[in-house]
Amino acid sequence: MSVHDGDQIDRAADGLSPEELGIRAIGPCMLPSPVAHRLGSGSVHFVGAADKVLLDDSVSGETLSTDASTQPAGFELAGPRDRIFFDPRLARFGIVTCGGLAPGLNNVIRGIVLELCLGYGVRNVLGFRFGYEGIVLRHGHVPIELTPDAVAHIHHEGGTVLGTSRGGQDVEEVVDSLQANSISALFAIGGDGTLRGALAIAQEVGRRGLSMAVVGIPKTIDNDIAFIDRSFGFVTAYSAAVDVIRSARVEALAALNGIGLVKLMGRQSGFLACQAALASTEADLVLIPELPLKLDGHHGFLACLERVVERKGHAVVVVAEGAGQDLLNEPGREPQFDKSGNPKLKDIGVFLRDTIVAHYASLGREATVKYIDPSYAIRSVPACPSDSVYCWNMARNAVHAAMAGNTAMLIGRWHGRFVHVPIELAIRRTRRVSPDGDLWVSVVESTGQPLKFE
Amino acid sequence: MSVHDGDQIDRAADGLSPEELGIRAIGPCMLPSPVAHRLGSGSVHFVGAADKVLLDDSVSGETLSTDASTQPAGFELAGPRDRIFFDPRLARFGIVTCGGLAPGLNNVIRGIVLELCLGYGVRNVLGFRFGYEGIVLRHGHVPIELTPDAVAHIHHEGGTVLGTSRGGQDVEEVVDSLQANSISALFAIGGDGTLRGALAIAQEVGRRGLSMAVVGIPKTIDNDIAFIDRSFGFVTAYSAAVDVIRSARVEALAALNGIGLVKLMGRQSGFLACQAALASTEADLVLIPELPLKLDGHHGFLACLERVVERKGHAVVVVAEGAGQDLLNEPGREPQFDKSGNPKLKDIGVFLRDTIVAHYASLGREATVKYIDPSYAIRSVPACPSDSVYCWNMARNAVHAAMAGNTAMLIGRWHGRFVHVPIELAIRRTRRVSPDGDLWVSVVESTGQPLKFE
Amino acid sequence: MSVHDGDQIDRAADGLSPEELGIRAIGPCMLPSPVAHRLGSGSVHFVGAADKVLLDDSVSGETLSTDASTQPAGFELAGPRDRIFFDPRLARFGIVTCGGLAPGLNNVIRGIVLELCLGYGVRNVLGFRFGYEGIVLRHGHVPIELTPDAVAHIHHEGGTVLGTSRGGQDVEEVVDSLQANSISALFAIGGDGTLRGALAIAQEVGRRGLSMAVVGIPKTIDNDIAFIDRSFGFVTAYSAAVDVIRSARVEALAALNGIGLVKLMGRQSGFLACQAALASTEADLVLIPELPLKLDGHHGFLACLERVVERKGHAVVVVAEGAGQDLLNEPGREPQFDKSGNPKLKDIGVFLRDTIVAHYASLGREATVKYIDPSYAIRSVPACPSDSVYCWNMARNAVHAAMAGNTAMLIGRWHGRFVHVPIELAIRRTRRVSPDGDLWVSVVESTGQPLKFE
Amino acid sequence: MSVHDGDQIDRAADGLSPEELGIRAIGPCMLPSPVAHRLGSGSVHFVGAADKVLLDDSVSGETLSTDASTQPAGFELAGPRDRIFFDPRLARFGIVTCGGLAPGLNNVIRGIVLELCLGYGVRNVLGFRFGYEGIVLRHGHVPIELTPDAVAHIHHEGGTVLGTSRGGQDVEEVVDSLQANSISALFAIGGDGTLRGALAIAQEVGRRGLSMAVVGIPKTIDNDIAFIDRSFGFVTAYSAAVDVIRSARVEALAALNGIGLVKLMGRQSGFLACQAALASTEADLVLIPELPLKLDGHHGFLACLERVVERKGHAVVVVAEGAGQDLLNEPGREPQFDKSGNPKLKDIGVFLRDTIVAHYASLGREATVKYIDPSYAIRSVPACPSDSVYCWNMARNAVHAAMAGNTAMLIGRWHGRFVHVPIELAIRRTRRVSPDGDLWVSVVESTGQPLKFE
Repeated sequence: MSVHDGDQIDRAADGLSPEELGIRAIGPCMLPSPVAHRLGSGSVHFVGAADKVLLDDSVSGETLSTDASTQPAGFELAGPRDRIFFDPRLARFGIVTCGGLAPGLNNVIRGIVLELCLGYGVRNVLGFRFGYEGIVLRHGHVPIELTPDAVAHIHHEGGTVLGTSRGGQDVEEVVDSLQANSISALFAIGGDGTLRGALAIAQEVGRRGLSMAVVGIPKTIDNDIAFIDRSFGFVTAYSAAVDVIRSARVEALAALNGIGLVKLMGRQSGFLACQAALASTEADLVLIPELPLKLDGHHGFLACLERVVERKGHAVVVVAEGAGQDLLNEPGREPQFDKSGNPKLKDIGVFLRDTIVAHYASLGREATVKYIDPSYAIRSVPACPSDSVYCWNMARNAVHAAMAGNTAMLIGRWHGRFVHVPIELAIRRTRRVSPDGDLWVSVVESTGQPLKFE
Repeated sequence: MSVHDGDQIDRAADGLSPEELGIRAIGPCMLPSPVAHRLGSGSVHFVGAADKVLLDDSVSGETLSTDASTQPAGFELAGPRDRIFFDPRLARFGIVTCGGLAPGLNNVIRGIVLELCLGYGVRNVLGFRFGYEGIVLRHGHVPIELTPDAVAHIHHEGGTVLGTSRGGQDVEEVVDSLQANSISALFAIGGDGTLRGALAIAQEVGRRGLSMAVVGIPKTIDNDIAFIDRSFGFVTAYSAAVDVIRSARVEALAALNGIGLVKLMGRQSGFLACQAALASTEADLVLIPELPLKLDGHHGFLACLERVVERKGHAVVVVAEGAGQDLLNEPGREPQFDKSGNPKLKDIGVFLRDTIVAHYASLGREATVKYIDPSYAIRSVPACPSDSVYCWNMARNAVHAAMAGNTAMLIGRWHGRFVHVPIELAIRRTRRVSPDGDLWVSVVESTGQPLKFE
Repeated sequence: MSVHDGDQIDRAADGLSPEELGIRAIGPCMLPSPVAHRLGSGSVHFVGAADKVLLDDSVSGETLSTDASTQPAGFELAGPRDRIFFDPRLARFGIVTCGGLAPGLNNVIRGIVLELCLGYGVRNVLGFRFGYEGIVLRHGHVPIELTPDAVAHIHHEGGTVLGTSRGGQDVEEVVDSLQANSISALFAIGGDGTLRGALAIAQEVGRRGLSMAVVGIPKTIDNDIAFIDRSFGFVTAYSAAVDVIRSARVEALAALNGIGLVKLMGRQSGFLACQAALASTEADLVLIPELPLKLDGHHGFLACLERVVERKGHAVVVVAEGAGQDLLNEPGREPQFDKSGNPKLKDIGVFLRDTIVAHYASLGREATVKYIDPSYAIRSVPACPSDSVYCWNMARNAVHAAMAGNTAMLIGRWHGRFVHVPIELAIRRTRRVSPDGDLWVSVVESTGQPLKFE
Repeated sequence: MSVHDGDQIDRAADGLSPEELGIRAIGPCMLPSPVAHRLGSGSVHFVGAADKVLLDDSVSGETLSTDASTQPAGFELAGPRDRIFFDPRLARFGIVTCGGLAPGLNNVIRGIVLELCLGYGVRNVLGFRFGYEGIVLRHGHVPIELTPDAVAHIHHEGGTVLGTSRGGQDVEEVVDSLQANSISALFAIGGDGTLRGALAIAQEVGRRGLSMAVVGIPKTIDNDIAFIDRSFGFVTAYSAAVDVIRSARVEALAALNGIGLVKLMGRQSGFLACQAALASTEADLVLIPELPLKLDGHHGFLACLERVVERKGHAVVVVAEGAGQDLLNEPGREPQFDKSGNPKLKDIGVFLRDTIVAHYASLGREATVKYIDPSYAIRSVPACPSDSVYCWNMARNAVHAAMAGNTAMLIGRWHGRFVHVPIELAIRRTRRVSPDGDLWVSVVESTGQPLKFE
């Protein structure tokens, strides 16, 4: 029986209960929302009765997959609420960006500040410098006052005006410092590690009985966070990667048996490699972490590559950094970890380059491998128009959620709509490309490569 | 009670029955699919038992909106089938592009040809020139043989290598010519009028009892076709519009009381104006056909504009071409229609430019209006990377549908997944921006303009 | 005998005497230059003994064109001087931008401010708003304090942060206001009219015996100011025009007998049309003011156009706005002038569009003309990298000139080097494309059109 | 006494005699030129009496530098001649591209083919594959027939459709093969090594008394070939480098004490580094081969870098690959050479990255160095509009020269005009940035760095 997943549209959510999808609020919303006032009641959600998006909208074959006798599980829709928790004139908000760069960080910062200040009339927004480190007072980083004027044009540059860093901080110290700064709500923009940190902060805040909200905005250039079918900056990132793949192809074309090899981000998930390959229309072979990378044999990678070069005179290979890691393990060597606790990957790009050259040499043939590892160029560009819209919607929905006192949650997207997702759920697993799902099938049909090397 | 629509995600589908959503096939699929053979059974749909996407995935408040006692309505998922109707070695396929240009036309043509020839082993694909006119033999346009080599690089240019034209042709004559050309399946890429034409062809084909499939690929730069939450080229179009809005702002900034005015496409729907305004982050006022355009009074457009100029020294206005048409009606003058049967719109851009200048003159103040009407520049650009991926998926899914003998249908998108939609359904109504839905709220929060001028 | 002009390299300078090329200084340079101090004597010019660039570097045939018995005429090289006139700590500088936008205005403003403040240690730079109007006190425009921080990023946007306007002001009033503002030197960035204004100001300053310098930075998107072989923003402008021509071609290709028609700036000179046509590689016919536009007859424009459409199926025409003006004259109607005193041109683009359509109709054939008039899109973009470098060099050389007390001059370029040019010389004539020079020959060889329509 | 060179405008040509500047022709021009016929006599040069560009157009101080008693030295102007040597209907032409990629190669190939075929009516143009190797028959590379249709759109992609390779071939064998292919004239597009090869071919051709012309088109992304003030692709290259520098800055800004380090091409000359730094406006320190790189001491590089980071919080360093090579020499190790005979450079980028990190560590401070080495991304892009024009002019002038039977020469540029330069002259020395010339002064004024580290 066919199980046909849209990979872009995350569906691996079976068995979640309505309780697990519930969002925690720090208290009852007593205040009228100035945004709701301006928009009128037709455009807002009512606190405690927000519409939901069904967890599953597939009807497999002829059978209905929902059981009407129980309340179906669904995510709460994001958006402005009729009532809010914080008093905009008094509350003070903090923003922090953590981890590696992704396109659109400045758009999200800007969007939060504009929605807070112009939408709700908030007067006090602090930007913490260089990640969680910047919250902790003893590090001595002075936070930036973020006003609408100050952020008006920051999105025309990539990166983050707040700066960023990797690695966590002592949770108690962070909460101490947030208290000392009288922060009502913290917006934490970052990846897996950052979101774990945000959850820990929210929990510590809960233990102390404070009225402080913690809202996450998931950032991952790998596009691999669960319940967010598209991370901000992802479209920009794969668009930038298209230019790199084009360069690789141009170099490959100009050489006798030229092989362009591009390594893209993607530690555990090949979304970026897949989308970039599709967008470029010029990749001949795509290698992702979700599928085994067999080098030798008639259906192995090297033989496939040879056939492409034989047929076309050149080839373009796109490899996600997490692909083929098992080929790189040196026996007896302990895995290493970076500051954020991620295992340090070995360099599959360099390995492939050397392997291909050696392989052709062993055949007595010449081949020229042009290897490009473009990571900075892809993550430091400004958001493209599509991400500009997307970041704005992430940001304003994060503000709506925070103003209503929601906490330990992040803004996710489900079936194309912005929803509230408990952080706990989102960090439970990593989104991956399904080997028989629609995205990988699309790549395989586009490149003509085998479904897998075996 | 909150009614919270995601505008981008089309949901106005209440009351459709499973029957209405059913796709017609021209015959039973008897042949094994070479694509399915290559992909393995895990990646394909089984003919007659394809998965579906529920029509409605919202749970409003606490009430479940589906009734489990009946079979819920849903769209059939697109994708490769296990068995096909046409013999790839013998069947002959035709492609036609109609109406105005949209970014990505060449990507779709290329995608169809590559999937047919490289995916299924088809040997015979004809490209008809200049729209439906090119199918009719007596017009004398010679169709182009479309091979993988011929189309390999066409997507690097905008436009359509086939040419296009407006207006319909006699259906009988079209079917006569398709028969004369031994066409097994026709891919018709175009808008509302084109799709009506495609349906008429399919119906005539049915009347004659022919085994010819007609598959539509909806094209609309207005993004207003029902059951397709994103038309191909739309992201490219609003991305291109961002540059125009930026020009308008730069011109406005340089003049005393400068007002930049940009007219964008959108006859009945303001999607392009909304998305471009959001993406640019620089629009102060957005005018769309879905909302009345009141000029005068304290809450009217002119007073709002004055306040923006007063506060910022300049203003940027984005207007969809279909906005405010009631202001332009000359009493006693009959409406006029173009070749495709669309009513000719009056020029709201020129009208607004003159109205604003006159208004400021009447106040004894100077204002400089810089008016830009960029339509060609927006529709003739090559597809951006995101649309490049999207066009490929539209194309390959259209091929999968046609190979399985489906007809009188088009490739749509529902909840972010590609689905089969009966043409009859898609042309029944036009998608429009909901005045209290998420898209318009996002625009209003971004620009700070009132929800409506009243 | 061959007369072979490089059009881009201006050479029509015969008969100028060394006296005419001499630059006026407002007084002796007594102060050591901090820039010279930092650079060392090897990198600076010595006041009163600057190197020169020969007026003429051509040797026609076998004859030497210079006569060694006399001092050959040459332009003084621009660059830092060993000594300066103004005391950087005390002097106050003003900047004004006038006329239509050109790419790079903000680069020039930024460059002047950075060189003044960071190079020379100047503490006081004022930016006047909206052209000369902003200098005159009674108009009430408050000048902007321009600091290095304030201008650091302004060049990432097109336009001018100072604003601009057309039209002159009373010279006495301007000088009164400059005196009232204690301006030591004024940088006037603008075209022909602006430079005439600057000269008048310098003359009035001279009459009053003031120690105030006036330095021009020539701005002309038409690239038609004498003794400046490349105006700033020109490369950006024709690069932007390439995209427009590409759009026109894409539209033309998609229509039966499609004709793309693009009107570009160029009132008296076709430089922009020529360079854009060359850069696009896609123009079939280029029409410039320097050559007569004959419509009819076997060698006329319409017959040539027909032949191109016949051969290729479509055609692309690029027309400079000043071309064919004689065709548009209505008998008995007086010429009209704009605020800057330029004669108002009639619209050759609309005229050609209508003429072509009528011509094809008269032949009983269909043709589709897609007409694009993109002026704002071309002039409001940010400077491209090449112009970014160029604007910086214009700006810093203007500052070096002003600090040395030079006045009534502008920064020009001769044989590829920056030089000092008396304003009086530069406004004496307009640079035009030579009908048998290298530029036009290059266009004719590229398009295949006749040297002239006759 | 000031010696003020325009670096971009090459002037180091003292002491060359008219004889050394003379161009060799393979025989008298007897045939009327079809191009001259079309253009008329006003637009062409007369064979044997072409206009010249003076070698020196500077007048240093008050002294005239030319001595009228002798014939002044000058370069022959390029352009169409009134008479030609080869019969266009019979002659056969070859094109070869060698060495590393540069933007615009395809533009040059296209331009040569179009001018030959459409301008002169040539029917036979061969493109040799993969450099000189492709000429030699025994390597078995089949040349490509180059027709106007085949090359019409190749310039929209970077790279070279002919392919390229490094390294020379046996001259006798090359000439044997050219003879076997009946080549009348060979266009050799490449750098220093390629031009030496072209000269050797021309000399061997001369020895054999053949009527074969060899015309060079100089290609160097380092912009360092003598007598060509701008190599084709150079503007595109530094424009692409601007994006890389911007990425480096964005990364630097986001980190605590972030230092962006970009390595650019430039083995012996820093032109690319200088222009890219100027164009980006964002470099703080630029390091070029022409100037010593002293690391330590108060005025050394590291101290300067520290001061920038101290002041701004971050820094951007641009280093040409050939800078500081003396720091990298390992005693006792022989220099190594690549296939083209160029000494292999050690990696100054990696060295600087490690040195900076170690330096900060030794100070007990944290610094993050983001190092980018973008070479492929810069050289494989399509030509920008400015280079598109430039390549066309290089190409058509090369064709004019070849048709007139000129040989052992290349197309150069002097004082902004295209000229004929004997290859022998051009390969005698390398163009370098003058340490007290205008270009370096411009960089120093822009970055604020010291004139040299000492």
